[in-house]
Amino acid sequence: MNQVLVVGSVALDTVETPFGRVDEALGGSAVYFSLAASLYAPVGLVGVVGSDFPASHVELLQRRGVDVSGLASQAGRTFRWSGRYDYDLNTTETLDTQLNVFAQFQPSLPPAYRRCPYLFLANIDPGLQASVLAQMDRPTLTMADTMNYWIQGSRDALIEVLRRVDVVTMNESEARLLTQTYSLARAAREILNLGPRAVIVKRGEYGAVVFADTSYFVAPALLLEEVKDPTGAGDSFAGGVMGYLARTGDLSPASLRRAVIHGSAVASFTVGEFSVDGLTDLSLDQVEERYHQFRAITEFELAPQGGQL
Amino acid sequence: MNQVLVVGSVALDTVETPFGRVDEALGGSAVYFSLAASLYAPVGLVGVVGSDFPASHVELLQRRGVDVSGLASQAGRTFRWSGRYDYDLNTTETLDTQLNVFAQFQPSLPPAYRRCPYLFLANIDPGLQASVLAQMDRPTLTMADTMNYWIQGSRDALIEVLRRVDVVTMNESEARLLTQTYSLARAAREILNLGPRAVIVKRGEYGAVVFADTSYFVAPALLLEEVKDPTGAGDSFAGGVMGYLARTGDLSPASLRRAVIHGSAVASFTVGEFSVDGLTDLSLDQVEERYHQFRAITEFELAPQGGQL
Repeated sequence: MNQVLVVGSVALDTVETPFGRVDEALGGSAVYFSLAASLYAPVGLVGVVGSDFPASHVELLQRRGVDVSGLASQAGRTFRWSGRYDYDLNTTETLDTQLNVFAQFQPSLPPAYRRCPYLFLANIDPGLQASVLAQMDRPTLTMADTMNYWIQGSRDALIEVLRRVDVVTMNESEARLLTQTYSLARAAREILNLGPRAVIVKRGEYGAVVFADTSYFVAPALLLEEVKDPTGAGDSFAGGVMGYLARTGDLSPASLRRAVIHGSAVASFTVGEFSVDGLTDLSLDQVEERYHQFRAITEFELAPQGGQL
Repeated sequence: MNQVLVVGSVALDTVETPFGRVDEALGGSAVYFSLAASLYAPVGLVGVVGSDFPASHVELLQRRGVDVSGLASQAGRTFRWSGRYDYDLNTTETLDTQLNVFAQFQPSLPPAYRRCPYLFLANIDPGLQASVLAQMDRPTLTMADTMNYWIQGSRDALIEVLRRVDVVTMNESEARLLTQTYSLARAAREILNLGPRAVIVKRGEYGAVVFADTSYFVAPALLLEEVKDPTGAGDSFAGGVMGYLARTGDLSPASLRRAVIHGSAVASFTVGEFSVDGLTDLSLDQVEERYHQFRAITEFELAPQGGQL
């Protein structure tokens, strides 16, 4: 099956929400992405950790079928992030960021990875994203994530990356920030004009919108009774999207729609637990069951079923 | 065809958005609702205006098939509202409210209206909503709108109304405020427990969610290139919903889903122009064309169509 490669952060996260708290729990964009994508396809992870990184975390990744031969271990401390969410789980308050060994991260792909057909560039410095792209040997599909920090501070480098990837994901506010355009439809068109063939705009609890071709697709989010910790939602969403595409090998716009529903289904498990706990024992059957829920909550041309309000 | 009755405000609105401004233009919840619902079914409007209300506005309503025999004209000035929207068109800043003749509004239904099968109680004092309900003779379907002002100031009266209507609509933040519950799924369940058989939660540019039975339906909003003035979006949405239900006479949960898409389609025309300009020349054909756009932007189980990103 098609292998998926991800380059991104591996972190120890301290997170506080109204529903609880975890200290130095497994996190990082590449970790969330890997655990999600590995439900669908073999995954290779490129990242860096410090000498303090627990072996049990590496074992967890391996147990879930993630190839960690690209996970470098360096002297020093692992990247740490600490954040807090209020009841409005759509906004993150970063309390502390310690880059540690991640500050000198220079992704170098193992030779076997250079011909990997599916590549996800998690939310890292666009300069590093470009260096990874330069190391790849004609990948089938490349997707990049980014954020406001790079849009504001590394705009030119980011635009260079956008010229060279197939799909880009970002939050709704970031799409507006990048294009200085309020209308999301216009913002997406401007981003498509920069190069990518599809834009996936993430809207948190409202779902996502996919812009490809000249059409768009509005994916809802499930209405969850309990969201414990939104950390990793976007990266596990991306993992579901790329995993589905790699597994099916179908890169049509229609397939991308289904992939986005898969990504949303996976992310709905992520946010139901702290850290990666919603992903560690997840099965593809469970995701597919939730996929069918998306159909149930979006269909409006049902055959007559009777009943009365 | 089933007649729809609406009780609500008739106003002269002064509105400023980043895209322009109108002064003392036709507005009010009952007006937006009527113009929308009259696309589908005969509509009767109950409201009050002052002696300064332009005859041309009354003629416009009549031209669109709205029965204005319940529109009282009293000595004094018409209700005036003035508001401003920033680029984020989801939030309204009220600059001025002059209730004028609307302050003494005591809706009294013409006898012919008491047996009207479809009733919409626009966003007015819950005490007045209750007095209208008391005047009705076993309506087939009743729907009420409300807002934070009544939730905070007239909570008990509002809950009494909720016990007696079939469907209630409110904004997402208002559903949370009413139930003191962050999870929308839980908030909706609590509202259903108060009495209504369906709750329609309005989410502005993100669409709406319908809770009925034990299931829910997530309706998207179209991504519009240009939103000029969001005033009246919620009321014309409700007009599309009630109009569709009255026209079809199908009150099944499946029909309510389609009705909500119709309401969203109508509202998308409302917000494209200032005041009621998006509604005054609208045809049902145009709405149905837009209805099909909703299908196109939400389908994700398309037959294979090929193509490549």
